[in-house]
Amino acid sequence: MTLAVALLLLIGQACNTKAEKQENVESDKYELNAIFPKGEKGSEEFFTGNAYAIRLVDADSIHTTLAGNVYFEPGARSNWHTHPSGQILIITDGVGYHKIEGQPMEVIKKGDVIKCPPNVRHWHGASPDVGLQQLYIIPNTEKGIVEWLEPVTDEQYTSNN
Amino acid sequence: MTLAVALLLLIGQACNTKAEKQENVESDKYELNAIFPKGEKGSEEFFTGNAYAIRLVDADSIHTTLAGNVYFEPGARSNWHTHPSGQILIITDGVGYHKIEGQPMEVIKKGDVIKCPPNVRHWHGASPDVGLQQLYIIPNTEKGIVEWLEPVTDEQYTSNN
Repeated sequence: MTLAVALLLLIGQACNTKAEKQENVESDKYELNAIFPKGEKGSEEFFTGNAYAIRLVDADSIHTTLAGNVYFEPGARSNWHTHPSGQILIITDGVGYHKIEGQPMEVIKKGDVIKCPPNVRHWHGASPDVGLQQLYIIPNTEKGIVEWLEPVTDEQYTSNN
Repeated sequence: MTLAVALLLLIGQACNTKAEKQENVESDKYELNAIFPKGEKGSEEFFTGNAYAIRLVDADSIHTTLAGNVYFEPGARSNWHTHPSGQILIITDGVGYHKIEGQPMEVIKKGDVIKCPPNVRHWHGASPDVGLQQLYIIPNTEKGIVEWLEPVTDEQYTSNN
């Protein structure tokens, strides 16, 4: 029995060592795969909880597309906001929520892809227990990027309506 | 000594079991992280070697953006091709090459992001020994998607010029 416990501990340590070789090990217990550098902590003006954002593709007049990555720690979410030309989200790891005003909240997870239409109020973020790694794409940036609105309340975050 | 070997084997098995839980375990020895389903094998008309593609975002008249994932097995690459509105590549795992005609070949790896200008001849694919997982984004799809050209020869693939 003691040997079995020792084996389990060793196995656990070996697997963790593998994960720790990555440049960006996440702090939550599910150790999400971090493809990109973590980036800067998102402003409290626009996010509730700990969210980290890095810009990957700057908009230019040729591609007219902006892209980046946001890592939401468990419980973290964006404020409500709109995009004049809409948004595409690609979830690369973890579990989170996406809410378009007036529609049921969607659970989003690794491999999911979501489109949000232009000028529609929405928010996105991690689930309470598991973080979220998400790429965002904003097309047609000549129309604008984002309009930030009010925070998502705890009641809105925990409601499925 | 025998116990040490047994421990190592057990540790190896435990870590592999973790990897095998993923839906899409890659066949190459580096076991790239597969975020999306593998998709369909790319046609020999457009690819050399084994490449697998899945569409993630269909173009529509609102977002005018197309996105998908390509997994290139080691040695696989696209034909030469052009995009009328350019292309953005986001590398999510592995190591590969990107070549714009007339420019030095770029080595691309996990976390790299590349822009290719409109109407420029280029190709991309895996390195000879490690596969490549790459997201592609094609903006402004109202201008078109892709024009396929001739295969990349072995000489072009192994040349760094």
